[in-house]
Amino acid sequence: MDYGHGVRTVLVIGIGAGDPEHLTLQAVDALRRTDVVFVIDKGDVKDDLLALRTEILRRHRPDGGHRTVVAPEVDRNRGADVQHDDARYRDVVVDWQDRRAELYRTMLETELADGETGAFLVWGDPSLYDGTLRLLDAVLADAPDGDWRVESIAGISSVAALAAAHRLILNRVGRPVLITTGRRIADGMPGDVDDVVVMLDGRTAFATLPPQQRGELHIYWGAYLGTPDQLLLAGPLEKVCDEILRVRAAARERKGWIMDTYLLRRGAAER
Amino acid sequence: MDYGHGVRTVLVIGIGAGDPEHLTLQAVDALRRTDVVFVIDKGDVKDDLLALRTEILRRHRPDGGHRTVVAPEVDRNRGADVQHDDARYRDVVVDWQDRRAELYRTMLETELADGETGAFLVWGDPSLYDGTLRLLDAVLADAPDGDWRVESIAGISSVAALAAAHRLILNRVGRPVLITTGRRIADGMPGDVDDVVVMLDGRTAFATLPPQQRGELHIYWGAYLGTPDQLLLAGPLEKVCDEILRVRAAARERKGWIMDTYLLRRGAAER
Ligand SMILES: C[S@@+](CC[C@H](N)C(=O)[O-])C[C@H]1O[C@@H](n2cnc3c(N)ncnc32)[C@H](O)[C@@H]1O
Ligand SMILES: C[S@@+](CC[C@H](N)C(=O)[O-])C[C@H]1O[C@@H](n2cnc3c(N)ncnc32)[C@H](O)[C@@H]1O
Repeated sequence: MDYGHGVRTVLVIGIGAGDPEHLTLQAVDALRRTDVVFVIDKGDVKDDLLALRTEILRRHRPDGGHRTVVAPEVDRNRGADVQHDDARYRDVVVDWQDRRAELYRTMLETELADGETGAFLVWGDPSLYDGTLRLLDAVLADAPDGDWRVESIAGISSVAALAAAHRLILNRVGRPVLITTGRRIADGMPGDVDDVVVMLDGRTAFATLPPQQRGELHIYWGAYLGTPDQLLLAGPLEKVCDEILRVRAAARERKGWIMDTYLLRRGAAER
Repeated sequence: MDYGHGVRTVLVIGIGAGDPEHLTLQAVDALRRTDVVFVIDKGDVKDDLLALRTEILRRHRPDGGHRTVVAPEVDRNRGADVQHDDARYRDVVVDWQDRRAELYRTMLETELADGETGAFLVWGDPSLYDGTLRLLDAVLADAPDGDWRVESIAGISSVAALAAAHRLILNRVGRPVLITTGRRIADGMPGDVDDVVVMLDGRTAFATLPPQQRGELHIYWGAYLGTPDQLLLAGPLEKVCDEILRVRAAARERKGWIMDTYLLRRGAAER
Protein backbone atom coordinates (compact mmCIF):
# COMPACT_ATOMS: atom_id res chain seq x y z
CA MET A 1 0.00 0.00 0.00
CA ASP A 2 1.21 3.46 -0.90
CA TYR A 3 0.60 6.15 1.66
CA GLY A 4 2.61 8.77 -0.24
CA HIS A 5 1.45 12.24 -1.15
CA GLY A 6 -0.84 12.51 -4.08
CA VAL A 7 -2.88 9.47 -3.15
CA ARG A 8 -6.54 10.25 -2.71
CA THR A 9 -8.22 8.24 0.02
CA VAL A 10 -11.87 7.31 0.09
CA LEU A 11 -13.22 6.04 3.39
CA VAL A 12 -16.42 4.06 3.63
CA ILE A 13 -17.41 4.53 7.23
CA GLY A 14 -20.07 2.39 8.90
CA ILE A 15 -21.90 4.71 11.31
CA GLY A 16 -24.20 2.16 12.91
CA ALA A 17 -27.88 1.59 12.37
CA GLY A 18 -29.40 4.55 14.18
CA ASP A 19 -27.70 5.20 17.50
CA PRO A 20 -24.87 7.78 17.35
CA GLU A 21 -23.31 5.89 20.29
CA HIS A 22 -22.81 2.89 17.97
CA LEU A 23 -19.95 4.71 16.29
CA THR A 24 -16.59 3.02 16.85
CA LEU A 25 -13.48 4.85 18.02
CA GLN A 26 -11.98 3.99 14.63
CA ALA A 27 -14.89 5.66 12.86
CA VAL A 28 -14.54 8.76 15.04
CA ASP A 29 -10.88 8.93 14.11
CA ALA A 30 -11.73 8.45 10.44
CA LEU A 31 -14.22 11.31 10.56
CA ARG A 32 -11.52 13.51 12.05
CA ARG A 33 -9.18 12.96 9.13
CA THR A 34 -11.89 13.52 6.53
CA ASP A 35 -11.62 16.55 4.23
CA VAL A 36 -14.76 15.94 2.21
CA VAL A 37 -17.93 14.19 3.31
CA PHE A 38 -19.88 12.82 0.38
CA VAL A 39 -23.62 12.55 0.93
CA ILE A 40 -26.05 10.75 -1.29
CA ASP A 41 -29.28 12.68 -1.16
CA LYS A 42 -32.10 10.15 -0.90
CA GLY A 43 -34.82 12.81 -0.79
CA ASP A 44 -36.90 13.79 2.20
CA VAL A 45 -38.41 10.42 3.12
CA LYS A 46 -35.34 9.45 5.06
CA ASP A 47 -34.78 12.67 6.93
CA ASP A 48 -33.88 10.74 10.05
CA LEU A 49 -30.88 9.15 8.36
CA LEU A 50 -29.69 12.55 7.28
CA ALA A 51 -30.26 13.75 10.84
CA LEU A 52 -28.03 10.97 12.20
CA ARG A 53 -25.23 11.93 9.82
CA THR A 54 -25.59 15.58 10.76
CA GLU A 55 -25.62 14.78 14.46
CA ILE A 56 -22.52 12.59 14.14
CA LEU A 57 -20.61 15.25 12.26
CA ARG A 58 -21.70 17.92 14.70
CA ARG A 59 -20.38 15.86 17.60
CA HIS A 60 -17.14 14.70 16.10
CA ARG A 61 -16.24 17.54 13.76
CA PRO A 62 -17.25 20.56 15.82
CA ASP A 63 -14.39 22.40 14.09
CA GLY A 64 -16.37 22.11 10.87
CA GLY A 65 -13.01 21.57 9.12
CA HIS A 66 -14.50 19.64 6.26
CA ARG A 67 -16.51 20.26 3.14
CA THR A 68 -19.76 18.45 2.40
CA VAL A 69 -20.66 17.46 -1.12
CA VAL A 70 -24.19 16.30 -1.81
CA ALA A 71 -24.84 14.16 -4.84
CA PRO A 72 -28.41 13.63 -5.97
CA GLU A 73 -29.48 10.00 -5.86
CA VAL A 74 -29.66 8.44 -9.29
CA ASP A 75 -33.19 7.39 -10.16
CA ARG A 76 -33.59 3.70 -9.62
CA ASN A 77 -36.26 3.18 -12.25
CA ARG A 78 -37.71 0.30 -10.32
CA GLY A 79 -41.25 -0.57 -11.31
CA ALA A 80 -43.47 -2.75 -9.16
CA ASP A 81 -43.47 -5.33 -11.96
CA VAL A 82 -39.80 -6.25 -11.61
CA GLN A 83 -40.03 -6.97 -7.90
CA HIS A 84 -41.09 -10.55 -8.51
CA ASP A 85 -38.61 -11.32 -11.26
CA ASP A 86 -35.22 -12.22 -9.89
CA ALA A 87 -33.11 -11.80 -13.01
CA ARG A 88 -34.75 -8.58 -14.14
CA TYR A 89 -34.54 -7.15 -10.66
CA ARG A 90 -30.81 -7.72 -10.75
CA ASP A 91 -30.47 -6.18 -14.19
CA VAL A 92 -32.27 -3.07 -13.08
CA VAL A 93 -30.09 -2.75 -10.00
CA VAL A 94 -26.88 -3.32 -11.96
CA ASP A 95 -27.79 -0.75 -14.62
CA TRP A 96 -28.59 1.71 -11.87
CA GLN A 97 -25.18 1.04 -10.38
CA ASP A 98 -23.48 1.84 -13.68
CA ARG A 99 -25.21 5.18 -13.95
CA ARG A 100 -24.31 5.98 -10.38
CA ALA A 101 -20.68 5.01 -11.02
CA GLU A 102 -20.49 7.60 -13.80
CA LEU A 103 -21.86 10.33 -11.54
CA TYR A 104 -19.56 9.47 -8.66
CA ARG A 105 -16.46 9.25 -10.81
CA THR A 106 -16.98 12.84 -11.87
CA MET A 107 -17.77 13.90 -8.34
CA LEU A 108 -14.72 12.26 -6.77
CA GLU A 109 -12.34 13.56 -9.39
CA THR A 110 -13.70 17.08 -9.17
CA GLU A 111 -14.07 17.40 -5.43
CA LEU A 112 -11.09 15.56 -4.03
CA ALA A 113 -7.65 17.11 -4.41
CA ASP A 114 -4.41 15.14 -4.40
CA GLY A 115 -3.61 13.85 -0.94
CA GLU A 116 -7.09 14.55 0.39
CA THR A 117 -9.45 12.16 2.16
CA GLY A 118 -13.11 11.78 1.31
CA ALA A 119 -15.67 9.79 3.21
CA PHE A 120 -19.01 8.14 2.64
CA LEU A 121 -20.96 7.66 5.85
CA VAL A 122 -22.97 4.51 5.41
CA TRP A 123 -25.81 3.10 7.44
CA GLY A 124 -24.90 0.15 9.67
CA ASP A 125 -21.93 -1.83 8.41
CA PRO A 126 -20.57 -1.30 4.87
CA SER A 127 -20.50 -5.07 4.31
CA LEU A 128 -24.25 -5.73 4.53
CA TYR A 129 -26.68 -4.77 1.77
CA ASP A 130 -24.90 -1.53 1.06
CA GLY A 131 -23.64 -0.69 -2.41
CA THR A 132 -21.02 1.92 -1.63
CA LEU A 133 -17.96 -0.35 -1.80
CA ARG A 134 -19.26 -1.93 -5.02
CA LEU A 135 -19.84 1.53 -6.41
CA LEU A 136 -16.29 2.61 -5.59
CA ASP A 137 -14.93 -0.56 -7.19
CA ALA A 138 -16.76 0.35 -10.36
CA VAL A 139 -15.79 4.02 -10.14
CA LEU A 140 -12.11 3.41 -9.59
CA ALA A 141 -11.70 0.23 -11.67
CA ASP A 142 -9.85 2.06 -14.45
CA ALA A 143 -7.94 4.50 -12.27
CA PRO A 144 -4.13 4.13 -12.37
CA ASP A 145 -2.75 2.07 -9.49
CA GLY A 146 -1.71 4.11 -6.51
CA ASP A 147 -3.85 7.15 -7.33
CA TRP A 148 -6.68 6.10 -5.09
CA ARG A 149 -6.98 4.18 -1.86
CA VAL A 150 -10.27 2.81 -0.53
CA GLU A 151 -10.71 1.86 3.11
CA SER A 152 -13.71 0.18 4.70
CA ILE A 153 -14.46 0.90 8.33
CA ALA A 154 -16.68 -1.62 10.07
CA GLY A 155 -19.83 -0.46 11.82
CA ILE A 156 -22.57 -1.91 14.00
CA SER A 157 -25.05 -3.41 11.53
CA SER A 158 -28.80 -3.45 12.02
CA VAL A 159 -28.37 -7.20 12.54
CA ALA A 160 -26.09 -6.63 15.53
CA ALA A 161 -28.40 -3.85 16.75
CA LEU A 162 -31.43 -6.14 16.52
CA ALA A 163 -29.63 -8.88 18.43
CA ALA A 164 -28.48 -6.50 21.15
CA ALA A 165 -31.93 -4.96 21.59
CA HIS A 166 -33.46 -8.41 22.11
CA ARG A 167 -30.37 -9.73 23.92
CA LEU A 168 -30.18 -12.48 21.31
CA ILE A 169 -27.47 -14.83 20.26
CA LEU A 170 -28.26 -15.22 16.57
CA ASN A 171 -26.99 -18.77 16.19
CA ARG A 172 -27.78 -21.79 18.30
CA VAL A 173 -24.80 -23.81 19.57
CA GLY A 174 -22.68 -24.86 16.60
CA ARG A 175 -25.43 -23.98 14.12
CA PRO A 176 -25.59 -21.51 11.24
CA VAL A 177 -27.47 -18.26 10.75
CA LEU A 178 -28.66 -16.94 7.40
CA ILE A 179 -28.98 -13.25 6.59
CA THR A 180 -31.36 -12.67 3.74
CA THR A 181 -34.02 -10.39 2.27
CA GLY A 182 -37.81 -10.26 2.50
CA ARG A 183 -38.08 -11.17 -1.18
CA ARG A 184 -36.04 -14.32 -0.59
CA ILE A 185 -38.25 -15.73 2.14
CA ALA A 186 -41.54 -14.74 0.50
CA ASP A 187 -41.86 -18.35 -0.69
CA GLY A 188 -40.98 -19.82 2.70
CA MET A 189 -38.14 -20.35 5.15
CA PRO A 190 -35.20 -22.36 3.84
CA GLY A 191 -35.39 -25.95 5.02
CA ASP A 192 -31.86 -26.32 6.27
CA VAL A 193 -31.36 -23.24 8.45
CA ASP A 194 -33.37 -22.58 11.60
CA ASP A 195 -32.21 -19.03 12.29
CA VAL A 196 -32.85 -16.48 9.59
CA VAL A 197 -32.35 -12.73 9.82
CA VAL A 198 -34.49 -10.83 7.34
CA MET A 199 -33.66 -7.36 6.03
CA LEU A 200 -35.04 -5.20 3.25
CA ASP A 201 -38.53 -6.50 3.72
CA GLY A 202 -40.94 -3.86 2.45
CA ARG A 203 -43.76 -6.35 2.09
CA THR A 204 -43.85 -8.05 5.52
CA ALA A 205 -42.95 -11.48 4.19
CA PHE A 206 -43.17 -12.94 7.70
CA ALA A 207 -46.95 -12.56 7.53
CA THR A 208 -47.36 -14.57 4.35
CA LEU A 209 -45.22 -17.61 5.11
CA PRO A 210 -46.89 -20.98 4.57
CA PRO A 211 -49.15 -21.75 7.58
CA GLN A 212 -47.30 -24.95 8.54
CA GLN A 213 -44.07 -22.93 8.80
CA ARG A 214 -45.62 -20.11 10.78
CA GLY A 215 -46.63 -22.49 13.52
CA GLU A 216 -43.05 -23.48 14.32
CA LEU A 217 -41.48 -20.04 14.19
CA HIS A 218 -40.59 -17.38 16.72
CA ILE A 219 -40.04 -13.84 15.52
CA TYR A 220 -37.85 -11.16 17.07
CA TRP A 221 -38.73 -7.94 15.33
CA GLY A 222 -37.20 -4.46 15.55
CA ALA A 223 -37.83 -1.17 13.76
CA TYR A 224 -35.91 2.13 13.89
CA LEU A 225 -33.32 0.22 15.93
CA GLY A 226 -31.00 2.39 17.96
CA THR A 227 -33.14 5.51 17.51
CA PRO A 228 -35.48 7.09 20.06
CA ASP A 229 -38.36 5.62 18.02
CA GLN A 230 -37.11 2.04 18.40
CA LEU A 231 -39.88 -0.56 18.36
CA LEU A 232 -39.43 -4.14 19.56
CA LEU A 233 -41.81 -7.08 19.48
CA ALA A 234 -41.15 -10.78 19.93
CA GLY A 235 -42.99 -14.05 20.39
CA PRO A 236 -44.41 -17.04 18.57
CA LEU A 237 -45.11 -15.83 15.03
CA GLU A 238 -48.75 -17.00 15.10
CA LYS A 239 -49.33 -15.00 18.25
CA VAL A 240 -47.59 -11.71 17.48
CA CYS A 241 -47.90 -11.51 13.69
CA ASP A 242 -51.00 -9.33 13.64
CA GLU A 243 -49.70 -7.05 16.33
CA ILE A 244 -46.47 -6.49 14.41
CA LEU A 245 -48.45 -5.71 11.26
CA ARG A 246 -50.54 -3.21 13.17
CA VAL A 247 -47.67 -1.52 14.99
CA ARG A 248 -45.60 -1.44 11.81
CA ALA A 249 -48.37 0.12 9.69
CA ALA A 250 -49.10 2.75 12.32
CA ALA A 251 -45.44 3.70 12.71
CA ARG A 252 -44.92 3.88 8.98
CA GLU A 253 -47.96 6.06 8.62
CA ARG A 254 -46.80 8.36 11.39
CA LYS A 255 -43.18 8.76 10.28
CA GLY A 256 -43.57 8.34 6.54
CA TRP A 257 -40.98 5.55 6.34
CA ILE A 258 -39.88 2.48 8.21
CA MET A 259 -36.77 0.34 8.48
CA ASP A 260 -37.22 -2.98 10.18
CA THR A 261 -35.28 -6.19 10.61
CA TYR A 262 -36.20 -9.45 12.26
CA LEU A 263 -34.98 -12.89 13.23
CA LEU A 264 -37.13 -15.91 12.42
CA ARG A 265 -36.23 -18.82 14.67
CA ARG A 266 -37.46 -22.38 14.25
CA GLY A 267 -37.87 -24.32 17.48
CA ALA A 268 -37.13 -21.44 19.82
CA ALA A 269 -37.34 -23.61 22.93
CA GLU A 270 -34.05 -25.34 22.09
CA ARG A 271 -31.04 -23.37 23.10
CA MET B 1 -37.98 -2.13 33.01
CA ASP B 2 -37.08 -1.22 36.55
CA TYR B 3 -34.07 1.02 36.98
CA GLY B 4 -34.62 1.45 40.71
CA HIS B 5 -32.04 0.94 43.42
CA GLY B 6 -31.32 -2.61 44.32
CA VAL B 7 -31.34 -3.84 40.75
CA ARG B 8 -28.09 -5.48 39.78
CA THR B 9 -27.08 -4.90 36.18
CA VAL B 10 -24.99 -7.25 34.10
CA LEU B 11 -23.58 -5.86 30.87
CA VAL B 12 -22.38 -8.08 28.08
CA ILE B 13 -20.07 -5.79 26.16
CA GLY B 14 -18.85 -6.62 22.66
CA ILE B 15 -15.29 -5.31 22.49
CA GLY B 16 -14.56 -6.08 18.84
CA ALA B 17 -12.47 -8.83 17.35
CA GLY B 18 -8.95 -7.63 18.10
CA ASP B 19 -8.58 -3.90 17.46
CA PRO B 20 -9.11 -1.71 20.53
CA GLU B 21 -10.28 1.00 18.10
CA HIS B 22 -13.26 -1.21 17.23
CA LEU B 23 -14.84 -0.33 20.55
CA THR B 24 -18.04 1.68 20.19
CA LEU B 25 -18.74 4.88 22.11
CA GLN B 26 -21.57 2.98 23.78
CA ALA B 27 -19.14 0.29 24.94
CA VAL B 28 -16.75 2.93 26.29
CA ASP B 29 -19.60 4.45 28.23
CA ALA B 30 -20.64 1.01 29.51
CA LEU B 31 -17.10 0.33 30.73
CA ARG B 32 -17.16 3.62 32.61
CA ARG B 33 -20.25 2.64 34.58
CA THR B 34 -18.94 -0.82 35.43
CA ASP B 35 -18.16 -1.65 39.05
CA VAL B 36 -17.00 -5.23 38.52
CA VAL B 37 -15.38 -6.72 35.43
CA PHE B 38 -15.87 -10.47 35.22
CA VAL B 39 -13.18 -12.33 33.36
CA ILE B 40 -13.37 -15.93 32.26
CA ASP B 41 -9.87 -17.31 32.47
CA LYS B 42 -9.28 -19.41 29.36
CA GLY B 43 -5.73 -20.30 30.33
CA ASP B 44 -2.57 -18.97 28.80
CA VAL B 45 -3.13 -20.00 25.17
CA LYS B 46 -5.19 -16.92 24.52
CA ASP B 47 -2.96 -14.37 26.19
CA ASP B 48 -3.59 -11.94 23.38
CA LEU B 49 -7.30 -11.81 24.14
CA LEU B 50 -6.51 -11.10 27.76
CA ALA B 51 -4.09 -8.43 26.57
CA LEU B 52 -6.82 -6.74 24.55
CA ARG B 53 -9.13 -6.64 27.56
CA THR B 54 -6.36 -5.24 29.74
CA GLU B 55 -5.46 -2.63 27.15
CA ILE B 56 -9.08 -1.57 26.77
CA LEU B 57 -9.56 -1.20 30.52
CA ARG B 58 -6.28 0.68 30.86
CA ARG B 59 -7.42 3.17 28.21
CA HIS B 60 -10.98 3.67 29.30
CA ARG B 61 -10.79 3.12 33.04
CA PRO B 62 -7.52 4.83 33.90
CA ASP B 63 -9.09 5.67 37.26
CA GLY B 64 -9.04 1.96 38.03
CA GLY B 65 -12.40 2.50 39.76
CA HIS B 66 -13.52 -1.06 39.27
CA ARG B 67 -12.83 -4.50 40.67
CA THR B 68 -11.85 -7.45 38.51
CA VAL B 69 -13.09 -10.94 39.30
CA VAL B 70 -11.53 -13.84 37.48
CA ALA B 71 -13.47 -17.09 37.18
CA PRO B 72 -11.67 -20.21 36.08
CA GLU B 73 -13.03 -21.65 32.86
CA VAL B 74 -15.07 -24.79 33.42
CA ASP B 75 -13.50 -27.83 31.79
CA ARG B 76 -15.25 -28.57 28.55
CA ASN B 77 -14.64 -32.28 28.63
CA ARG B 78 -14.61 -32.41 24.89
CA GLY B 79 -13.01 -35.54 23.44
CA ALA B 80 -11.96 -35.79 19.82
CA ASP B 81 -14.54 -38.55 19.33
CA VAL B 82 -17.55 -36.31 19.82
CA GLN B 83 -16.43 -33.80 17.24
CA HIS B 84 -18.05 -35.74 14.43
CA ASP B 85 -21.30 -36.55 16.16
CA ASP B 86 -23.72 -33.67 15.98
CA ALA B 87 -26.15 -34.65 18.72
CA ARG B 88 -23.49 -35.74 21.20
CA TYR B 89 -21.49 -32.63 20.51
CA ARG B 90 -24.49 -30.57 21.48
CA ASP B 91 -25.08 -32.60 24.64
CA VAL B 92 -21.53 -32.08 25.77
CA VAL B 93 -21.75 -28.35 25.15
CA VAL B 94 -25.08 -28.05 26.93
CA ASP B 95 -23.88 -29.97 30.00
CA TRP B 96 -20.83 -27.75 30.10
CA GLN B 97 -23.09 -24.73 30.03
CA ASP B 98 -25.06 -26.03 33.02
CA ARG B 99 -21.94 -26.47 35.09
CA ARG B 100 -20.79 -23.00 34.12
CA ALA B 101 -24.17 -21.54 35.05
CA GLU B 102 -23.75 -22.92 38.57
CA LEU B 103 -20.32 -21.36 38.94
CA TYR B 104 -21.41 -18.00 37.60
CA ARG B 105 -24.55 -17.84 39.69
CA THR B 106 -22.42 -18.07 42.82
CA MET B 107 -19.94 -15.59 41.46
CA LEU B 108 -22.52 -12.97 40.47
CA GLU B 109 -24.41 -13.24 43.73
CA THR B 110 -21.26 -13.00 45.81
CA GLU B 111 -19.43 -10.29 43.94
CA LEU B 112 -22.15 -7.89 42.87
CA ALA B 113 -23.83 -5.76 45.52
CA ASP B 114 -27.31 -4.30 45.18
CA GLY B 115 -27.38 -1.51 42.64
CA GLU B 116 -23.99 -2.39 41.20
CA THR B 117 -23.08 -3.04 37.60
CA GLY B 118 -21.00 -5.96 36.42
CA ALA B 119 -19.65 -6.53 32.94
CA PHE B 120 -18.45 -9.38 30.77
CA LEU B 121 -16.16 -8.20 28.00
CA VAL B 122 -16.76 -10.51 25.08
CA TRP B 123 -14.85 -11.00 21.88
CA GLY B 124 -16.44 -9.48 18.77
CA ASP B 125 -20.20 -9.16 19.03
CA PRO B 126 -22.16 -10.92 21.81
CA SER B 127 -24.65 -12.24 19.25
CA LEU B 128 -22.28 -14.46 17.26
CA TYR B 129 -20.98 -17.78 18.57
CA ASP B 130 -20.60 -16.47 22.08
CA GLY B 131 -22.27 -18.17 25.00
CA THR B 132 -22.29 -15.35 27.56
CA LEU B 133 -25.89 -14.21 27.04
CA ARG B 134 -27.07 -17.84 27.06
CA LEU B 135 -25.11 -18.40 30.23
CA LEU B 136 -26.71 -15.39 31.92
CA ASP B 137 -30.16 -16.58 30.85
CA ALA B 138 -29.47 -19.87 32.58
CA VAL B 139 -27.90 -18.22 35.60
CA LEU B 140 -30.71 -15.75 36.18
CA ALA B 141 -33.64 -17.89 35.03
CA ASP B 142 -34.86 -18.46 38.58
CA ALA B 143 -34.01 -15.04 39.99
CA PRO B 144 -36.99 -12.94 41.12
CA ASP B 145 -38.16 -10.45 38.50
CA GLY B 146 -36.60 -7.03 38.87
CA ASP B 147 -33.56 -8.17 40.83
CA TRP B 148 -31.31 -8.39 37.80
CA ARG B 149 -31.08 -6.58 34.52
CA VAL B 150 -29.05 -7.88 31.58
CA GLU B 151 -27.96 -5.60 28.76
CA SER B 152 -26.23 -6.60 25.53
CA ILE B 153 -23.93 -4.09 23.88
CA ALA B 154 -23.22 -4.71 20.21
CA GLY B 155 -19.63 -4.96 19.03
CA ILE B 156 -17.75 -5.30 15.76
CA SER B 157 -17.77 -9.02 15.01
CA SER B 158 -14.95 -10.89 13.36
CA VAL B 159 -17.29 -11.16 10.37
CA ALA B 160 -17.49 -7.38 10.06
CA ALA B 161 -13.74 -7.14 10.68
CA LEU B 162 -13.02 -9.69 7.94
CA ALA B 163 -15.24 -7.83 5.49
CA ALA B 164 -13.65 -4.47 6.30
CA ALA B 165 -10.10 -5.81 5.97
CA HIS B 166 -10.88 -7.19 2.49
CA ARG B 167 -13.22 -4.29 1.66
CA LEU B 168 -15.93 -6.85 1.00
CA ILE B 169 -19.67 -6.60 0.76
CA LEU B 170 -20.68 -10.00 2.12
CA ASN B 171 -23.85 -10.39 0.10
CA ARG B 172 -24.30 -10.00 -3.62
CA VAL B 173 -27.18 -7.76 -4.76
CA GLY B 174 -30.41 -9.01 -3.19
CA ARG B 175 -28.83 -12.33 -2.22
CA PRO B 176 -28.29 -14.02 1.14
CA VAL B 177 -25.18 -14.73 3.18
CA LEU B 178 -24.76 -17.67 5.54
CA ILE B 179 -22.64 -17.57 8.68
CA THR B 180 -21.63 -21.03 9.77
CA THR B 181 -18.90 -23.18 11.33
CA GLY B 182 -16.06 -25.24 9.92
CA ARG B 183 -17.75 -28.44 11.06
CA ARG B 184 -20.86 -27.52 9.09
CA ILE B 185 -19.12 -27.10 5.76
CA ALA B 186 -16.78 -30.08 6.17
CA ASP B 187 -19.13 -32.06 3.92
CA GLY B 188 -19.42 -29.33 1.34
CA MET B 189 -20.83 -25.88 0.68
CA PRO B 190 -24.63 -25.60 0.90
CA GLY B 191 -26.22 -25.71 -2.54
CA ASP B 192 -28.51 -22.74 -2.19
CA VAL B 193 -26.22 -20.03 -0.80
CA ASP B 194 -23.25 -18.65 -2.71
CA ASP B 195 -21.70 -16.55 0.05
CA VAL B 196 -20.69 -18.37 3.21
CA VAL B 197 -18.72 -16.98 6.13
CA VAL B 198 -16.97 -19.69 8.11
CA MET B 199 -15.99 -19.33 11.77
CA LEU B 200 -14.75 -21.75 14.41
CA ASP B 201 -12.83 -23.79 11.87
CA GLY B 202 -10.03 -25.55 13.69
CA ARG B 203 -9.63 -28.10 10.94
CA THR B 204 -9.31 -25.96 7.79
CA ALA B 205 -12.49 -27.28 6.21
CA PHE B 206 -11.90 -25.10 3.14
CA ALA B 207 -9.04 -27.39 2.15
CA THR B 208 -11.10 -30.57 2.15
CA LEU B 209 -14.17 -29.45 0.21
CA PRO B 210 -15.19 -31.70 -2.68
CA PRO B 211 -12.94 -30.93 -5.70
CA GLN B 212 -15.81 -29.89 -7.99
CA GLN B 213 -16.82 -27.26 -5.41
CA ARG B 214 -13.32 -25.96 -4.85
CA GLY B 215 -13.01 -25.07 -8.52
CA GLU B 216 -15.86 -22.56 -8.39
CA LEU B 217 -14.98 -20.87 -5.12
CA HIS B 218 -13.09 -17.76 -4.11
CA ILE B 219 -11.81 -17.49 -0.56
CA TYR B 220 -11.22 -14.31 1.46
CA TRP B 221 -9.30 -15.39 4.54
CA GLY B 222 -8.25 -13.45 7.63
CA ALA B 223 -6.50 -14.39 10.86
CA TYR B 224 -5.86 -12.33 14.01
CA LEU B 225 -8.09 -9.71 12.42
CA GLY B 226 -7.72 -6.23 13.85
CA THR B 227 -4.51 -7.08 15.69
CA PRO B 228 -0.96 -6.12 14.70
CA ASP B 229 -0.51 -9.76 13.60
CA GLN B 230 -3.41 -9.62 11.13
CA LEU B 231 -2.99 -11.93 8.14
CA LEU B 232 -5.01 -11.63 4.94
CA LEU B 233 -5.07 -13.84 1.87
CA ALA B 234 -7.58 -14.03 -0.96
CA GLY B 235 -8.04 -15.57 -4.37
CA PRO B 236 -9.49 -18.55 -6.21
CA LEU B 237 -9.56 -21.36 -3.67
CA GLU B 238 -7.63 -23.77 -5.92
CA LYS B 239 -4.87 -21.23 -6.29
CA VAL B 240 -4.43 -19.96 -2.74
CA CYS B 241 -5.49 -22.98 -0.68
CA ASP B 242 -1.99 -24.34 -0.11
CA GLU B 243 -0.57 -20.94 0.68
CA ILE B 244 -3.25 -20.34 3.32
CA LEU B 245 -2.53 -23.74 4.87
CA ARG B 246 1.18 -22.91 4.98
CA VAL B 247 0.78 -19.38 6.36
CA ARG B 248 -1.81 -20.57 8.87
CA ALA B 249 0.31 -23.44 10.17
CA ALA B 250 3.38 -21.24 10.52
CA ALA B 251 1.46 -18.50 12.38
CA ARG B 252 -0.17 -20.99 14.68
CA GLU B 253 3.18 -22.55 15.44
CA ARG B 254 4.73 -19.17 16.15
CA LYS B 255 1.97 -17.77 18.35
CA GLY B 256 0.62 -20.95 19.89
CA TRP B 257 -2.96 -20.26 18.82
CA ILE B 258 -4.89 -18.94 15.87
CA MET B 259 -8.30 -17.40 15.22
CA ASP B 260 -9.32 -17.21 11.61
CA THR B 261 -12.46 -16.51 9.64
CA TYR B 262 -13.14 -16.60 5.94
CA LEU B 263 -15.69 -15.98 3.23
CA LEU B 264 -16.26 -18.63 0.57
CA ARG B 265 -17.83 -17.08 -2.51
CA ARG B 266 -19.20 -18.99 -5.46
CA GLY B 267 -18.91 -17.27 -8.83
CA ALA B 268 -16.85 -14.34 -7.59
CA ALA B 269 -16.89 -12.60 -10.98
CA GLU B 270 -20.58 -11.67 -10.64
CA ARG B 271 -21.18 -8.63 -8.58
C1 LIG C 1 -29.95 -1.08 2.46
S1 LIG C 1 -29.94 -2.08 3.91
C2 LIG C 1 -28.57 -1.41 4.77
C3 LIG C 1 -28.10 -2.26 5.90
C4 LIG C 1 -26.92 -1.67 6.66
N1 LIG C 1 -25.71 -1.64 5.84
C5 LIG C 1 -26.67 -2.42 7.95
O1 LIG C 1 -25.54 -2.89 8.17
O2 LIG C 1 -27.59 -2.52 8.75
C6 LIG C 1 -31.35 -1.44 4.73
C7 LIG C 1 -32.04 -2.48 5.60
O3 LIG C 1 -31.33 -2.60 6.82
C8 LIG C 1 -32.22 -2.79 7.89
N2 LIG C 1 -32.03 -1.67 8.83
C9 LIG C 1 -31.11 -0.70 8.74
N3 LIG C 1 -31.18 0.13 9.78
C10 LIG C 1 -32.18 -0.32 10.56
C11 LIG C 1 -32.72 0.11 11.80
N4 LIG C 1 -32.25 1.20 12.42
N5 LIG C 1 -33.73 -0.60 12.33
C12 LIG C 1 -34.21 -1.69 11.70
N6 LIG C 1 -33.73 -2.14 10.54
C13 LIG C 1 -32.72 -1.46 9.97
C14 LIG C 1 -33.61 -2.86 7.31
O4 LIG C 1 -33.93 -4.22 7.10
C15 LIG C 1 -33.44 -2.14 6.00
O5 LIG C 1 -34.36 -2.59 5.05
C1 LIG D 1 -16.21 -18.31 19.83
S1 LIG D 1 -16.26 -17.44 18.31
C2 LIG D 1 -16.53 -15.80 18.88
C3 LIG D 1 -16.96 -14.87 17.78
C4 LIG D 1 -17.17 -13.45 18.26
N1 LIG D 1 -18.31 -13.34 19.14
C5 LIG D 1 -17.31 -12.50 17.09
O1 LIG D 1 -18.32 -11.76 17.03
O2 LIG D 1 -16.42 -12.46 16.25
C6 LIG D 1 -14.56 -17.49 17.85
C7 LIG D 1 -14.40 -17.49 16.35
O3 LIG D 1 -14.51 -16.17 15.86
C8 LIG D 1 -13.61 -15.94 14.82
N2 LIG D 1 -12.72 -14.84 15.24
C9 LIG D 1 -12.84 -14.12 16.37
N3 LIG D 1 -11.91 -13.17 16.43
C10 LIG D 1 -11.17 -13.27 15.30
C11 LIG D 1 -10.08 -12.54 14.77
N4 LIG D 1 -9.53 -11.52 15.43
N5 LIG D 1 -9.60 -12.92 13.57
C12 LIG D 1 -10.14 -13.95 12.90
N6 LIG D 1 -11.16 -14.65 13.35
C13 LIG D 1 -11.70 -14.32 14.54
C14 LIG D 1 -12.87 -17.23 14.57
O4 LIG D 1 -13.53 -17.91 13.53
C15 LIG D 1 -13.03 -17.94 15.88
O5 LIG D 1 -12.99 -19.34 15.70
